[in-house]
Amino acid sequence: MAEQLTLHEDPRSGNCYKIKLTAALLDLPLATRQYDIMAGDTRTPEFLGKINSNGRIPVLEIRDGKNVRFLPESNAACWYLASDSDLIPQERYAQADMLRWMFFEQYNHEPNVATLRFWLTFVGEANLSDQQRAQVMAKRIAGCDALSVMNTELAKSDFLCGDKVTLADIALFAYTHVAGEGGFKLADYPELGPWIDRICSLPRFVPMT
Amino acid sequence: MAEQLTLHEDPRSGNCYKIKLTAALLDLPLATRQYDIMAGDTRTPEFLGKINSNGRIPVLEIRDGKNVRFLPESNAACWYLASDSDLIPQERYAQADMLRWMFFEQYNHEPNVATLRFWLTFVGEANLSDQQRAQVMAKRIAGCDALSVMNTELAKSDFLCGDKVTLADIALFAYTHVAGEGGFKLADYPELGPWIDRICSLPRFVPMT
Repeated sequence: MAEQLTLHEDPRSGNCYKIKLTAALLDLPLATRQYDIMAGDTRTPEFLGKINSNGRIPVLEIRDGKNVRFLPESNAACWYLASDSDLIPQERYAQADMLRWMFFEQYNHEPNVATLRFWLTFVGEANLSDQQRAQVMAKRIAGCDALSVMNTELAKSDFLCGDKVTLADIALFAYTHVAGEGGFKLADYPELGPWIDRICSLPRFVPMT
Repeated sequence: MAEQLTLHEDPRSGNCYKIKLTAALLDLPLATRQYDIMAGDTRTPEFLGKINSNGRIPVLEIRDGKNVRFLPESNAACWYLASDSDLIPQERYAQADMLRWMFFEQYNHEPNVATLRFWLTFVGEANLSDQQRAQVMAKRIAGCDALSVMNTELAKSDFLCGDKVTLADIALFAYTHVAGEGGFKLADYPELGPWIDRICSLPRFVPMT
């Protein structure tokens, strides 16, 4: 790959970690540029105008000579990096089923499991707004439901899409393995611990820092 | 395609409509089986055990002789149907950028634009729980932000990923064109009306019923 890859990230974000883990597993060089989302670094006019009009990280910057392109959305960036690799199944149903887990991750898992981790570990329970506080219980229930759906699937196979690791596992590993920081009890989902161990044992695995 | 396709759906759902629109544009036969999500039809033991452990529609059933597979998540079902069609760009960045909009749809758009439509048009404002009522303003703001991000992009090109329609447009059209039912004012986003017209003018377009 002649192109240069730079991840615009906040290292506390599991969404950013997914991309770093994908790059590491594929042995792709990936530079990083750090932002502090809590200081508003991703809401500046420059960031909104040039990097992501949605005001969010991660964004993957792809530089090929003078041509620079920006790719927001963690799972889209993982897809870009893993194109034509073994992390994406090529068979039609298997590929769609992998994407199914990645959409599930963004809809059912991340808004609950990741948001409670952000609120409880980084914002702090005492600093939550009334509106946030009113949502904690609903997010707790929905997050437990998401972990339970994963647990059901992982009782059938070593990874979410069969016997090989795919982007589905990477996407869901990111916030699942630190779900304890959001007050979730991983021990309640007996299939998740061994699955986490399998991912941590992959060649070139890198931990979240 | 030798396989038989059946959509497990609630016709009120834009997530189900996406799949029907994709099938129609591609001229693929698609049977349907109806559920009433408000009556709990998707939470029965049979549905959870056999069709989708996540208890949600849409689910695409793919039957090939005696082999039956189920594919949850609307955007994954669209991806399956559109594989190898012009609705998915093949160039690496373009394909990832299309997925970027589909993840954006599930994370930033649907939970706000679709949820407010569901709450205001189907549940009814008077029947909202206190917890739902407390979220209306935040969802209004986030939904407007999502429509604004689309508007910014559509000022640059006819469709979200350039000059041709892709699954990104279908995914985001589903709830955008009925956003008025959630109290959003589409006239505030001048690029959206012409984009909606372009999609409605596509050959084999079918309306949401």
